[in-house]
Amino acid sequence: MHANWKTWAHVTKLDPDKHLPPGAVEEIVTSGTDALMLSGTLNVTQENLRELLDMVSAYGLPLVVEPASPDCAIFDGEVDHLFVPSVMNTSDARWIIGKHYAWLRNSGSINWDIVVPEAYIVLNPASAVGRVTGADCTLAKEDVAAFVGVADRYFRFPIVYIEYSGTYGDPDIVRAASDAIEHAILYYGGGIRSAEQAAEMGSIADTIVVGNAVYEDGIDVLRATVRAVQ
Amino acid sequence: MHANWKTWAHVTKLDPDKHLPPGAVEEIVTSGTDALMLSGTLNVTQENLRELLDMVSAYGLPLVVEPASPDCAIFDGEVDHLFVPSVMNTSDARWIIGKHYAWLRNSGSINWDIVVPEAYIVLNPASAVGRVTGADCTLAKEDVAAFVGVADRYFRFPIVYIEYSGTYGDPDIVRAASDAIEHAILYYGGGIRSAEQAAEMGSIADTIVVGNAVYEDGIDVLRATVRAVQ
Repeated sequence: MHANWKTWAHVTKLDPDKHLPPGAVEEIVTSGTDALMLSGTLNVTQENLRELLDMVSAYGLPLVVEPASPDCAIFDGEVDHLFVPSVMNTSDARWIIGKHYAWLRNSGSINWDIVVPEAYIVLNPASAVGRVTGADCTLAKEDVAAFVGVADRYFRFPIVYIEYSGTYGDPDIVRAASDAIEHAILYYGGGIRSAEQAAEMGSIADTIVVGNAVYEDGIDVLRATVRAVQ
Repeated sequence: MHANWKTWAHVTKLDPDKHLPPGAVEEIVTSGTDALMLSGTLNVTQENLRELLDMVSAYGLPLVVEPASPDCAIFDGEVDHLFVPSVMNTSDARWIIGKHYAWLRNSGSINWDIVVPEAYIVLNPASAVGRVTGADCTLAKEDVAAFVGVADRYFRFPIVYIEYSGTYGDPDIVRAASDAIEHAILYYGGGIRSAEQAAEMGSIADTIVVGNAVYEDGIDVLRATVRAVQ
C-alpha cells in the first residue's frame, strides 16, 4: 500500500467520462499532487474507468477509485484505495446505505483493507452529484456542523468530504465543518482554479481536491494549486 | 462509568410506557442481569422515562437509555450510556440519520463519552419499531449478512442489534449475522421467554436482551434467562 492517505494535502480528481489530451497524464502525475482519484457521477463505466486506470497506473502515484456505484468498486489489487462515499444530507436512503448494501449483497469477499468510507456533504444543488442524490443543499453553517458531527462522532467516518462539485464554496461553511470535526480528515472539493483558492481552502481543510481545473485550465493552474498547499 | 458494556451477556429492557408492580424493580436488579436498558418505541416521554429512571437508579446496576427520539437523549450524568440506534433496513432516512442530525442540530454539547452507536436490523414487521421505522423485514440470511457487513465494516458501529421485538427470531438468521461480523458486538433481542431460548440465542449473540418476559412471565423466568447465559 502507498503512502498514508491521511497525509495528503492535494488530490487530483480525474473523471473517466472526460478526455485528457496526449501528454496530459505525464504532466499531472509530475505536478506534485499527492494522489489521483478516479471519480465521476455520470457515465462512469467499468470500460472508461479501466481505460483511465491503464493510462495512469504506471507512474507510481497513489491511486484511489471513488465508485459512484457498486459495479465500479472492483479494482482490488490495482488501486491503493477505494474511497466509498455515503451522502449525509439526502433523504434518499439509496445514497446513504442502499448502494453499499447492494455492493456487499452482490459481492464475493471485499478487501476491506483498501476501503476508506467517506461522508459526503453535497452543497451544490446544480451539480450532477447534487441532482442525482437529491441532496438538500440549502444548509446554514450550523446545519453543516450537525451533519459533520453525525458523520464524525456517530458513524465514525474517517473522511468527511465537503463537496461543492464544480463551484467554489463558502470558506465559512468549510470552517464550520472543520470546527465540528474531532477525528476525521476533512476533504474540500469544488471549483478550485487558482493558487489563491487552493491556499484558502487548504488552510481550512486537511486535503483539497482539484478536478475541473485539470481539464479546463491546464497544467500550470494545477501546479499552482499544488504549490499553494505544499 | 460502570463495567464495560462489551462484556454484558444479559441485558434487561424496561419500557417507560409499561407498569411494574411494587417490588418488581428490586427483583429485577437482583436477578443477575448485567444491565438495565430503558427503551421503548411508543409513548416514551421525558416524564415516564424520568419516573422509571428514579425507580431503578439507586441500585448500582449499569443503566442505559436507548432513546427513540432526540428529546429522550438528555440524561447525561444519570446514566452510564446512551445507546443510540440507527435502522439499517429501512428506506426512511429519518431513522438512519435524520433524527441523529436533528439531535446534534438542536443540542448544545453532547457527551460523546457515553454514546454508543447501535446498528439496528429490525425483523418483526408487526412490532411497533417495525411499523414506525418502515423496516423491510422480508430478509433472507444473505440480506441480513449484507446489512450487518455494512454496519460493522463500513459504518463501524460498535453494536449490531438483531431486533425481533416481541417475537422469537430465527437462529439461522442470527447466526448469519454473527458470521458476517468482524468487530462489532452482536445483540439479540426479541421474544426470549425461557431458559432454552436464552441459551440458544446466547450461544450465537454476544448479548441477549430480555424485555417482555419481565412484564408478562415474572421474575422466575427472568432469572432463568440470566442463568442460561452466565
